[in-house]
Amino acid sequence: MSLIVQKFGGSSVADAERVMNVASIVTDTYAKGNDVVVVVSAQGDTTDDLIDKANEINPKASKREKDMLLAAGEQISISLLAMAIEKLGYHAVSLLGWQAGFETSSAHTSARIKRVDASRIKREIDKKNIVIVAGFQGLSKYGDITTLGRGGSDTSAVAIAAAMHADLCQIFTDVEGVYTADPRKVKNASKLSEISYDEMLELATLGAQVLNNRSVEMAKKYNIELEVLSSLTKASGTIVKEKSKMEKMLISSVAKDTDVARISVTGIPNVPGLAFKLFTKLSAKDINVDIILQSIGHDGKKDITFTIAKDRIDDAVECLNAYVEAIGAHEVLFDDTVAKVSIVGAGMESHAGVAAKMFEALYDAQINIQMISTSEIKVSVLIDAADADKAVSAIHAKFFD
Amino acid sequence: MSLIVQKFGGSSVADAERVMNVASIVTDTYAKGNDVVVVVSAQGDTTDDLIDKANEINPKASKREKDMLLAAGEQISISLLAMAIEKLGYHAVSLLGWQAGFETSSAHTSARIKRVDASRIKREIDKKNIVIVAGFQGLSKYGDITTLGRGGSDTSAVAIAAAMHADLCQIFTDVEGVYTADPRKVKNASKLSEISYDEMLELATLGAQVLNNRSVEMAKKYNIELEVLSSLTKASGTIVKEKSKMEKMLISSVAKDTDVARISVTGIPNVPGLAFKLFTKLSAKDINVDIILQSIGHDGKKDITFTIAKDRIDDAVECLNAYVEAIGAHEVLFDDTVAKVSIVGAGMESHAGVAAKMFEALYDAQINIQMISTSEIKVSVLIDAADADKAVSAIHAKFFD
Repeated sequence: MSLIVQKFGGSSVADAERVMNVASIVTDTYAKGNDVVVVVSAQGDTTDDLIDKANEINPKASKREKDMLLAAGEQISISLLAMAIEKLGYHAVSLLGWQAGFETSSAHTSARIKRVDASRIKREIDKKNIVIVAGFQGLSKYGDITTLGRGGSDTSAVAIAAAMHADLCQIFTDVEGVYTADPRKVKNASKLSEISYDEMLELATLGAQVLNNRSVEMAKKYNIELEVLSSLTKASGTIVKEKSKMEKMLISSVAKDTDVARISVTGIPNVPGLAFKLFTKLSAKDINVDIILQSIGHDGKKDITFTIAKDRIDDAVECLNAYVEAIGAHEVLFDDTVAKVSIVGAGMESHAGVAAKMFEALYDAQINIQMISTSEIKVSVLIDAADADKAVSAIHAKFFD
Repeated sequence: MSLIVQKFGGSSVADAERVMNVASIVTDTYAKGNDVVVVVSAQGDTTDDLIDKANEINPKASKREKDMLLAAGEQISISLLAMAIEKLGYHAVSLLGWQAGFETSSAHTSARIKRVDASRIKREIDKKNIVIVAGFQGLSKYGDITTLGRGGSDTSAVAIAAAMHADLCQIFTDVEGVYTADPRKVKNASKLSEISYDEMLELATLGAQVLNNRSVEMAKKYNIELEVLSSLTKASGTIVKEKSKMEKMLISSVAKDTDVARISVTGIPNVPGLAFKLFTKLSAKDINVDIILQSIGHDGKKDITFTIAKDRIDDAVECLNAYVEAIGAHEVLFDDTVAKVSIVGAGMESHAGVAAKMFEALYDAQINIQMISTSEIKVSVLIDAADADKAVSAIHAKFFD
């Protein structure tokens, strides 16, 4: 008998029919002799509907009250799923974040899990209940409801798996697993049976939003075996674990991210610390900078180019224009018609020439590389957005065909 | 400076505009130098929408999960009201039932408040917050969310007023107060400025559903002054207190209840205890019996006639038919075209002839009385439903014109 944590996202419980489908997956797992803890997100569009209600009244409402409002979403989905499981003849009990023992920081709307006191969950399992836990939410030390931010339900599931030493944490989603590339775009893309935590982490940050990054980090830290699989098919998914057998492959996946923009600040006087301060300004506005390129421009002045998330362009340009004036730099330029294409694979660590092979694929496809960034198990290039799909296909063909 | 508890029902917070209206009432009260605790029900049709969702999945869901589901309704309304108050420039904090210290029995869907630990509410008031509490809900000793049943938010408000020794508990509703009769039906009906707890209790059980009965009982027990008033007008309402100045009036109000049915069981053998057992059978099915009339029929057998709530006819007839067969009685008859018309007034206790005056009014209006029931401060008659409005007008004219 194993202890299995199963997590279902909002689209998996969007309506009565899908809730019943989830109930049948859960009860099948339980009927095989496993203890089951289920983590659920809010139904389909509930969160967006609640945000609309709030915005109609006060778009600048406090984060504490936003959390209070949004947490109602999972309360609805957990109770409905419990009812569906009861209908199938099994005992279920739904628990809110605070009832399930989720203690978080008090950073409303993006709280961090500090501790999961799983005693209530354990008591319910001892009573032979299938336990359904509201994902995404917890309680601060001040006794206030908090939420974990986007994708927080994945993290909730892994946190429970860690606290209870679960044998497996299954993340059900609308794709069948992790692929060598986006199967809707690349015809030879194939599902990976296994992938390592590190590879999954790189993919999560590269726009392949199968799993929330914080959840993978936590799974790695506590060595929780994850499985990414579909709630709509019976196919087995992709296992995420410490060392995958995929490591003999050079790379495991090709990903693209079109949610990026390139910004350049030109003519920065060659004074030590000026570049550093520029990034401090952006950081103060919570703008994350990704690939950075620094070059000596004319007259001994520097140009700095870097990428940020596309939706932060306005904030970044406003912030930088003020800075450019203050330090006597030349101007701020930006381009939002770029895309980041990346290859990820633990095999790179021990094999030379992987990056070269990627650049060769791009060269053969006549695609110009604007910027390059590498880590131990990743190579990313910034290219024209119009070339992104062609680039992924060309690279995928080079490594997998 | 006073401590005022204000309660707003679901229709008062049905949409963004009404939530803003409530926020302005609350902040006006606060701006006058009062501490304010607000109790809110779920928005308009939220509770019914949630019940529909549950029924689609499992109409026989456990009461525990129904409570979990329904409690999400107030969570939405309290946070929206807090946001509306923030928009008006005041500090507000919303609290769920369990956060506000509502400890209840574990009778899900109809829990009773056992204790209100108001320490969190007091802390928030000390911080100069307007405190918004979810009505209708609490926590059982097992750590499970409970609800108090229909009208429970009134009781929540009075319970907080009692726990905090509030100076006044205002119940905002869609009528301006308690009237001498239904103002939509009786043209000379007038608003009472005061009424006693006992009179209010009789009215609440007689179909004049201005206040939930449990809330009036609790207000009487802890001597909490209530005010019933409208959230849509600025008019003062009706004060409910121990001794009202209305007591010199013979009666305070005329009410009708059309949600009743009359049932007769005929030809019951004249054996001691048979009638008692009949009511035990009904009680076991949670069917409440109101006016009872027993008469000797033919052949030394008895007829028993009584009234019940109209929506329990099917259950009652089914239950009684089985009993009639078992004891050899004749048959079960029912009539759902009846109405109960009542007069209520503490003045009756010290004045003879009040009932006679009521019967005279009905006689003058050519209305036949089927059954009569009296208490110290109430006289009720059962009449044909078609005569109900005419009866109320005739009685009202007799006493008030």
